[in-house]
Amino acid sequence: MKLNYVTLALACGVLCFTGCKNEPKEADIYEEPVVEDVKIEVLSAWADAPKQRIVDWVEAVTQDGSPDYIPVKDRIAVFDNDGTLWPEQPVPNQAQYIFDYLKKEYSNKPEWKKDAVVTGVVNGDLEPLKKAGMKGLINVINKVNTARTESEFNESVKTWIDTTKSKKFNKLYTEAVYLPMLQLLDYLRDNEFKTFIVSGGGADFMRVWTEDIYGIPPYQVIGSYGELKYEVVDGIPRITKTEGELYVDDKAGKPVAIHRFIGKKPVFCGGNSDGDQAMMQYTSSSKYKSMCVILHHTDGEREFEYDTKTLSGHLETALVEAKEKNWLVVDMKNDFKQIFSFQ
Amino acid sequence: MKLNYVTLALACGVLCFTGCKNEPKEADIYEEPVVEDVKIEVLSAWADAPKQRIVDWVEAVTQDGSPDYIPVKDRIAVFDNDGTLWPEQPVPNQAQYIFDYLKKEYSNKPEWKKDAVVTGVVNGDLEPLKKAGMKGLINVINKVNTARTESEFNESVKTWIDTTKSKKFNKLYTEAVYLPMLQLLDYLRDNEFKTFIVSGGGADFMRVWTEDIYGIPPYQVIGSYGELKYEVVDGIPRITKTEGELYVDDKAGKPVAIHRFIGKKPVFCGGNSDGDQAMMQYTSSSKYKSMCVILHHTDGEREFEYDTKTLSGHLETALVEAKEKNWLVVDMKNDFKQIFSFQ
Repeated sequence: MKLNYVTLALACGVLCFTGCKNEPKEADIYEEPVVEDVKIEVLSAWADAPKQRIVDWVEAVTQDGSPDYIPVKDRIAVFDNDGTLWPEQPVPNQAQYIFDYLKKEYSNKPEWKKDAVVTGVVNGDLEPLKKAGMKGLINVINKVNTARTESEFNESVKTWIDTTKSKKFNKLYTEAVYLPMLQLLDYLRDNEFKTFIVSGGGADFMRVWTEDIYGIPPYQVIGSYGELKYEVVDGIPRITKTEGELYVDDKAGKPVAIHRFIGKKPVFCGGNSDGDQAMMQYTSSSKYKSMCVILHHTDGEREFEYDTKTLSGHLETALVEAKEKNWLVVDMKNDFKQIFSFQ
Repeated sequence: MKLNYVTLALACGVLCFTGCKNEPKEADIYEEPVVEDVKIEVLSAWADAPKQRIVDWVEAVTQDGSPDYIPVKDRIAVFDNDGTLWPEQPVPNQAQYIFDYLKKEYSNKPEWKKDAVVTGVVNGDLEPLKKAGMKGLINVINKVNTARTESEFNESVKTWIDTTKSKKFNKLYTEAVYLPMLQLLDYLRDNEFKTFIVSGGGADFMRVWTEDIYGIPPYQVIGSYGELKYEVVDGIPRITKTEGELYVDDKAGKPVAIHRFIGKKPVFCGGNSDGDQAMMQYTSSSKYKSMCVILHHTDGEREFEYDTKTLSGHLETALVEAKEKNWLVVDMKNDFKQIFSFQ
């Protein structure tokens, strides 16, 4: 999953170039192969039109002497995760982790039986959770997290993510990630952008696997986060999750978290919902020529088709602002030649 | 200030090597210069003994095949700032910024006149501030920050830091930084460590100048931080500092912030006070062979001499734990051959 797509494309290109040549005549043997015509195909899973827009922007902001040149130190690219780098239907993958954890631990926790939301989740009934709203969700997250140490939590997520498959795709969640977006991450990094995740998902949940799957190290992963306690027990330092306030990294929380964690205004932003609109506005206010990309989930066959009718990934007002500000709206059905590497 | 010291040393070494040769005889002209004897002096401002300990550790954890090898992705090094990378006496430099700001704005803010702490600071009397403790300090910081936008605050810090001199050294604050520590930052980065600041100072205050002075970009600067508000005013997004809770990145707050911002346990930690003790414990609990370095301010002539008697940089319990855990205690008077580049 950490393949560098440009390197790969280059390798394939050279292979094809040499492999396609006729058998050399003896006089040709010592001639150097002519390589100037080998085109490296970047963003190969993208249709031509959106690819061209992205390439045009990257070239405009990275080529020496360009009036739109952005110094390397200011090439900050931020990406939402759920619905932008991997699917978020029928529920976000982290919600499935939480549901699975509640089911697994339910019989050991008699106090949970009094909780209608938790009992509902365990019995497959999400209505009490929906009714309880954000406060109810935070309560559930606190139940899942509280009193777990840093290493206990990481191991629990690692075991789950290494073994749990998406029902729709019958693939590990880490295999069901969007190939065009992996290519985009690589393409930006090859052009000396720093890539960050800025997601409503839990930072601790994502950091367990983002380095292997997206090539994004934990310290470039920003997400929702809760309270922690540091203490030394029997001479051993430990950090434990505690009940308390949850920072929700969504909507206006995203630009605030970008300020808090990155400390620079991005020049590129990728997202897929109204929850990403504020960080797109913020990115668009850069003094540099910026670019924003919104995925519109239009492919019910290869992935999911949704915008305004789902609990996660509501997309409505951001589409209006996209038109006003000329953000690139990606129609996944037509603009992604391939969505997953396994398809 | 962003010189890469190894590159510089290498360049000087090669220059000297070639420059010191006698004029070549004709037969020598096409001989390749013999370079294997050119020694690169790393950490040249350090005395031999502490330098050797640092180099031994870096070599043990970075050389292929070493039993203590640390993969590049886990080479996380954290540094305190005040008293570790630059001085913190007679008051931390950021406190001086705050005092200067209060003095400058005092006549425009009639409501500040009722505040004994602020009025004391403006008149050069710090006793009310000391008596008001942490709560009083947070109140003052809120007074300085509140209602300032991201760009207003950055510009104010930039103007101050670009023009204000340390009274003791008669140099800009950004010139009065510890040369041996700049060399250490470079040496670690040359060995593929990521260097982070984890300081009690304000993240927003530091991020304005750390990239130029230390080569540490804003997203690797962790510090104390306050509440923020995101809004769009007349179509323009802006982030404003607001009154509210302040996250104090000191003592137990440091390992918690490392978890929250970096998401990996460090393998190297540099500090100078009991406020850094928790992050040293946390670093020492790494599964890898780790290293902790404590600066002991012992040089009243070239810098300041203090440990237990000053408001900032109290160093007492960390020295005890340093002995138990074999952390490197740097006696600045004897272990730093040079403290500042201007001396």
